[in-house]
Amino acid sequence: MGLRDEILEQPEVARRHLASSSAAIDALVARLRANPIYHLFIAARGTSDHAAIYGQYLFGVVNALSVGLAAPSVVSVYGVEPRVGRSLVVGISQSGASPDIVAVVAAARRQGAPTLAITNAPDSPLGAAAEYVIDLAAGPERAVAATKTYTTSLLALARLSGALAGEPTEALQGIPDAIAAALEVEPEVERITGELASMDRGVIVGRGFEYATAREWALKLKELAQVFADPYSAADFLHGPIALVQPGIPVLVLAPAGAAAPGQLQLLRDLRERRVDTLVASDVADARALGRWSIALPAGLPERLRPIVSIVPAQLFAYHLTRARGLDPDQPRYLSKVTRTV
Amino acid sequence: MGLRDEILEQPEVARRHLASSSAAIDALVARLRANPIYHLFIAARGTSDHAAIYGQYLFGVVNALSVGLAAPSVVSVYGVEPRVGRSLVVGISQSGASPDIVAVVAAARRQGAPTLAITNAPDSPLGAAAEYVIDLAAGPERAVAATKTYTTSLLALARLSGALAGEPTEALQGIPDAIAAALEVEPEVERITGELASMDRGVIVGRGFEYATAREWALKLKELAQVFADPYSAADFLHGPIALVQPGIPVLVLAPAGAAAPGQLQLLRDLRERRVDTLVASDVADARALGRWSIALPAGLPERLRPIVSIVPAQLFAYHLTRARGLDPDQPRYLSKVTRTV
Repeated sequence: MGLRDEILEQPEVARRHLASSSAAIDALVARLRANPIYHLFIAARGTSDHAAIYGQYLFGVVNALSVGLAAPSVVSVYGVEPRVGRSLVVGISQSGASPDIVAVVAAARRQGAPTLAITNAPDSPLGAAAEYVIDLAAGPERAVAATKTYTTSLLALARLSGALAGEPTEALQGIPDAIAAALEVEPEVERITGELASMDRGVIVGRGFEYATAREWALKLKELAQVFADPYSAADFLHGPIALVQPGIPVLVLAPAGAAAPGQLQLLRDLRERRVDTLVASDVADARALGRWSIALPAGLPERLRPIVSIVPAQLFAYHLTRARGLDPDQPRYLSKVTRTV
Repeated sequence: MGLRDEILEQPEVARRHLASSSAAIDALVARLRANPIYHLFIAARGTSDHAAIYGQYLFGVVNALSVGLAAPSVVSVYGVEPRVGRSLVVGISQSGASPDIVAVVAAARRQGAPTLAITNAPDSPLGAAAEYVIDLAAGPERAVAATKTYTTSLLALARLSGALAGEPTEALQGIPDAIAAALEVEPEVERITGELASMDRGVIVGRGFEYATAREWALKLKELAQVFADPYSAADFLHGPIALVQPGIPVLVLAPAGAAAPGQLQLLRDLRERRVDTLVASDVADARALGRWSIALPAGLPERLRPIVSIVPAQLFAYHLTRARGLDPDQPRYLSKVTRTV
């Protein structure tokens, strides 16, 4: 099983995750209904931190909670346990082995706050530290670059958010097929990466829900393809980093339908005027037409769930760009599967 | 007045800010003493977002608050006003003109939460939206790249944190002289940037309090010198982006004394083994000796206040690297002083 196998396995893994026990979600939702919270803090590193960013938009927009990403060093380096009040504190880690994430969750639990671990290793230290545990049930992830544990982490967050909002689960049940549809772009993605093989720098722009996708796409490009890929929300991009763009440095833009679309389309038109090469990932043909290259995303998904699907072509892009650059996606430089940061 | 003048003006500006009225801070602290809070959310973009990151560590470590950075798009793009409960909600913006930051603060105020604006324009929309306003009193900032409004934003946060903790203000009073001492490295910084003129990519690593400095240093390098400068906390760096480093791509490491120092020193030794060129900014000679290049930071500052000073050599570095690369630091490409993101 290599990285590509794990990317292609995601429809099946998503199906398995959705069929897995919802007991932890049900119990946590019952507790939060009895004792409402306003705040949610999420501690995570690396790829899991991008799942946390998705959670920030999801629980903000769907559940109207104030969501913050924890700075784990406050606990692990400075030894201070911030007061969490009645926040829900969530740790996300596929291995469940990172001491700093465990420390944040353990500190919150000592204060009596509800705590949740989202992990592929429920028997891990993180699983032991949290009161509630959602098992990703993604099966062993052998590739160093996380893919299926990312999409299942997003799914787990979406299940919890939907259950807390009392939403029906039909839309979630459509995700495995949507991931399968997203995988069909592989031949086109491979063709594009062939043209971009000399790319050693790039900017990736998302907004709102797709900001998490931009961050995760960039990380995959860094760790696998050794590309300096700089991810931004469109708003922050205009606050300085736009100075980086110039002909020859591609800008990858996530511009699917939704509330963030108008701003993304304006950005695409501005970049076109500046003769910058863009790659557009979108479910809207008019948006794709604004890019030099484009990748089609499956249409018809609710905006709040789409990041679970839109990362999939980006994973394929990173995989094939890595090979186009003569590197081995299954042997990324300097990295190991479990990173135990303190 | 150009960018360099504003960098050099910072000791005087810091002195002026510290002498400015503390009425807003006193009133806010009195309110927070009467009605204690556990949570603080900060909304900001660009350079101000890096002040917010400093605030996350500062109020976490010194005041044991749970601090989150707001995702302004939740309000401005998706039209949802998250419940803030009894959080303190802070907006930071030198111009006070960014509609998305104003929207976050206004939404919190409508809910009755205490709100604070930190701005160089107290008469701005942000100043009008917040119940409490700290005037940076930095004087007009004309250069597109923010420098003196960054250091005064940090100072404003440090004043508030210290007042809330009931700390004496002596250490704060030493900051203007420390900034003046930090400016003395300019000839050495100019010499180093001459050697690095061909740098078009780089990684910047901070940890804990100095993570904000790494982020702001990177932004200055992007917007002024057009360098793909990727900032990381050391923990996140090990989760993937370390794959980017190789001989010829310098890594700039903030490694001053303090709780985060042991990890940074280990990272420097690892990078040396991999023959990566590092530049070390530190107040400790042993740490500096681990780098191919080094910049001395003034010694003896409390760790929680040092980011106000350690950014200053980084600003000089960005200014001189920009010139060494044949670019004009006073005319950054595509940027304007006020960015009104929605």
